[in-house]
Amino acid sequence: MRLSRYFLPTLRETPKEAEIVSHRLMLRAGLVRQEAAGIYAWLPLGLRVLNRVCAVIREEQDRAGAIEILMPAIQSAELWKESGRYEAYGKEMLRIADRHDREMLFGPTAEEVVTEIFRASVKSYKDLPKNLYQISWKFRDEVRPRFGTMRSREFLMKDAYSFDIDQASARHAYNRMFVAYLRTFAGLGLKAIPMRADTGPIGGDLSHEFIILAQTGESEVFCDRQYLDFEIPPVTTDFEDVAGLQGTVDRWTSHYAATSEMHEPAAFAEVPADNQMAARGIEVGHIFYFGTKYSEPMGAKVTGPDGIERPVHMGSYGIGPSRLVAAIVEASHDEAGIIWPDAVAPFDVALINLKTGDAATDAACTEIQASLEAAGLTVLYDDRDERPGAKFATADLIGLPWQVIVGPRGLAEGKVELKRRAGGERETIAPIDLIARLKRA
Amino acid sequence: MRLSRYFLPTLRETPKEAEIVSHRLMLRAGLVRQEAAGIYAWLPLGLRVLNRVCAVIREEQDRAGAIEILMPAIQSAELWKESGRYEAYGKEMLRIADRHDREMLFGPTAEEVVTEIFRASVKSYKDLPKNLYQISWKFRDEVRPRFGTMRSREFLMKDAYSFDIDQASARHAYNRMFVAYLRTFAGLGLKAIPMRADTGPIGGDLSHEFIILAQTGESEVFCDRQYLDFEIPPVTTDFEDVAGLQGTVDRWTSHYAATSEMHEPAAFAEVPADNQMAARGIEVGHIFYFGTKYSEPMGAKVTGPDGIERPVHMGSYGIGPSRLVAAIVEASHDEAGIIWPDAVAPFDVALINLKTGDAATDAACTEIQASLEAAGLTVLYDDRDERPGAKFATADLIGLPWQVIVGPRGLAEGKVELKRRAGGERETIAPIDLIARLKRA
Repeated sequence: MRLSRYFLPTLRETPKEAEIVSHRLMLRAGLVRQEAAGIYAWLPLGLRVLNRVCAVIREEQDRAGAIEILMPAIQSAELWKESGRYEAYGKEMLRIADRHDREMLFGPTAEEVVTEIFRASVKSYKDLPKNLYQISWKFRDEVRPRFGTMRSREFLMKDAYSFDIDQASARHAYNRMFVAYLRTFAGLGLKAIPMRADTGPIGGDLSHEFIILAQTGESEVFCDRQYLDFEIPPVTTDFEDVAGLQGTVDRWTSHYAATSEMHEPAAFAEVPADNQMAARGIEVGHIFYFGTKYSEPMGAKVTGPDGIERPVHMGSYGIGPSRLVAAIVEASHDEAGIIWPDAVAPFDVALINLKTGDAATDAACTEIQASLEAAGLTVLYDDRDERPGAKFATADLIGLPWQVIVGPRGLAEGKVELKRRAGGERETIAPIDLIARLKRA
Repeated sequence: MRLSRYFLPTLRETPKEAEIVSHRLMLRAGLVRQEAAGIYAWLPLGLRVLNRVCAVIREEQDRAGAIEILMPAIQSAELWKESGRYEAYGKEMLRIADRHDREMLFGPTAEEVVTEIFRASVKSYKDLPKNLYQISWKFRDEVRPRFGTMRSREFLMKDAYSFDIDQASARHAYNRMFVAYLRTFAGLGLKAIPMRADTGPIGGDLSHEFIILAQTGESEVFCDRQYLDFEIPPVTTDFEDVAGLQGTVDRWTSHYAATSEMHEPAAFAEVPADNQMAARGIEVGHIFYFGTKYSEPMGAKVTGPDGIERPVHMGSYGIGPSRLVAAIVEASHDEAGIIWPDAVAPFDVALINLKTGDAATDAACTEIQASLEAAGLTVLYDDRDERPGAKFATADLIGLPWQVIVGPRGLAEGKVELKRRAGGERETIAPIDLIARLKRA
C-alpha cells in the first residue's frame, strides 16, 4: 500500500483529552478517532491491528473446539426478564424502545440469547459438549468512559459460551478455554497471568481474570513472580485430554495470583519474599463457570443417558479485542511511538523513500515493495513528498516491526538500510537479500 | 469439521412464518435463527456463507482502491442535525437516549460520520481522491420486517464513501464502484443488471441499483435482455483509466433497464420486442453520486490547486451482504434445498459416511477428510449415527457444491461416489483421484 493513497491521519500534537499513553498513541498514530464519548471509529491502520488480534483469538477458539456464530446487537428485553437480569443490570445497559414501543436493548453480553439458541435445538446429552462463540460489538453505558478503547462504551468482545451435561464436563470446558486463553495472549506477544477473580454480574462460583502487567494498569494485582517464566501450552496440546488439561490448569493456578478484589494479604505473605510481586495490571480476559444460573430459569434442559431431563451446565469466556489493542500499546511502546509485536502489526514493513521524485530511488522502492509483497509480506510504502525526518517520525510513531530505508546514496553502493523498530538495530543490506533476512527473523 | 461436533440445527418442518423460499430454506438449513422481529442470529453454517460473501466484496473494494475502516454502530444525533437528516429520517431510525439523556441512534447509514472523519483530517486536493468503506451492522426500524434476512431490521451493509475535488473526478469515483459492483456480483455467481434508480433519502442526481432477476423478487423491473450476455470487466481492469472505465459504464448503461419507480413505458416500447424483458428483481446494490449535499452543510472542504476552499464532492455505495445471502438462495435452489455457488459455499464438500461405526468406512472417511483438507478444500463430514436417507437429505438441504459418498460396498471395489449438488451428476471414483477431480472443476 502506498501511503499517498492510504488514509493515515496522524496527529502532531498530543491530544489533551488522552490520559494514558495508549490512548495518546492510538490517536496520534491515526488508529482510531473518537466520534462520541466512549465511542470510536477504527481508521484503516487501527482496523488492521484489530483484525489481526481477532484472527489470533479465532484461531485458538477454533483449535479448542469452539464454533463461531454471530448473535444480533439488538436484543429483546423479554429474554433478560426470563433470566432475571433485566432489572438487575442497571444503567450500564443501553435500553431502547423500538417504533412499536417494544423494549429492546443493545447487548452488553449474550448469555440470554445464546441460551435461547441452545434450548431451541439441543435436547440430548449426545449433542454435548458444545461451545459457541462470537466476535461482535457490545455496548455498556459507562458513567465516565475514558482511556480510549481501553474503557469505551462501544467495544468489540469475543464471547464464548459452553454447554455441558454436568459439572465435571463443564470443568473440562472451562479448562479448554483457560488453556486457549494462555495460548491466545502469548500469540499476541503478551504475558498474561490468570488470577482468581470475582464473578460480578455474570454470577457463578469459578472465575479467572487474565491480567497483563503494565505500569499504567487500571488495578493493583498481587502474584508470584514465577508465573512469568511458565511455559505456554504448545500448539500440539490435546484439548480432548481431560487429565492433561487439568494438569496444565493446576500448574497455572498453583501459585499465588489475585486481583485486588480477591487479594488475601495473609496468603500473599507466605509467598517467598523474592517472588512477591505487587504490580499494576490490565484485565484482558475473563472466564466464568456458572452452572445452571441461566439454564434453570430459561429452561435449557437436555436429557441425560438415564432419560432424565436436567438443566445444562454453562460457562462464559470473554476477551475484548478493542481493549486488547490498547493493552498491547501500553505494554509495547517507547518515546517515539508504538512498537507492534509481529503477530498483530498492521503491516510488516515500513518502506521509506528518502528522495521521492528521484527516478532511481522511486524505481528501487517500487521494486522492493513488489518483491516483498510477492513473498507474502505486507508493506506500507511512504512515497509522500516529505523530508526524511518526517518519514522517520511517522514510521516510528506507527510502529511497524521493520523499516526499509532507501536513498540514492545507499543505492549507489547497491544497499538499503534495514531497521528493527524494537531495539532500533540497523544494518545495511542488498535489496535482494531482504526477503531471506526478514523471513529468517 | 465433523458434523457430530458442529452446530447445525436443521428443521424438518417448514416454518410457517416464512413466506419466501430463501427464508424457508435459511431457517430449515440452520443458517439463521430469528431472535426478535426482523432480527437474526447467524448460526455457524450461515456465518460461513456471510463471511465468504464479505470476502468477495472486500476483495473488489480493495481492488478498486477503496480503503476499509469501521465506524461505530451508535452515533450521536448531533451530526445528523448538522446534515439536516435527523428529523427527516423518520421512524425507521432507531433513536436512543443514553444514561445522560444524550440523543443517540443506531446508524442506518453513515454519510454523516464519514464526512466528520474526512473533514477532521483532509484539507487539500492533494490527498484526493479517497474512498473509505466499512462492512458493519446497520439498523432500520421497518414497520413490518419480513422475508427473513432479505428485509430485516438489523442487517449487514458494506457502505463506501468517495471524496473528490470536483464533479468530473467524482464521476470517475462513481464509475470505479460501478465496475467493482459488476465484478462483485459476478464473483458471487450472480447476474446483476445496473438500473437507473431513484435516489430516495440519500439524495443526489445520479444513482443506479444493481438488480438480480428472481421469480420471487420484491419489485418489477424492465430491461433489455442483451444485458444478460454482457461480459464482466476482467480482473486486469485498470481502475485508474478514466476513459476506459467510462467506456465500460457507458456500455452497461446503453440499453434500457429501469426499476418500476423509474420505468418509462414509451422508452421501453422502443426496445426490440424480442429483447423486452419484464421480470421480478431483487436489489442487491445501490450507488449514489450526491455532490456536496453533505459536505456543504457539514463544512467538509478542501483547498484546490488555486488555493480556494470548496466543499468536496461525494458519493456513497452500498451492498447488503446479509440480504445477498438470501438473494443467492432465491437465485440458486431446488426442491431439495439450497445449491451454493462455489464462491460462497460454507464448505466445499459434504463427506457422507453411509455406515458410521463400520471400522473400514470410518477409516476411509477420516482419511479422505484429512487429504481433502490438506489440499485446501473445506469438508463437512457427516459422521452422525443416522441412516443414509437422512444424511442425503441433510446434504441436499444445506447445498454444499460436492458430495462424497462413502460406503462399504463401494470401498470393496476401491471406489467412492462423487455427486455434484447442482445438476446431480454422479460418478464413481477412487479416493486418491478426488483431489485432482475437484481441483479441475
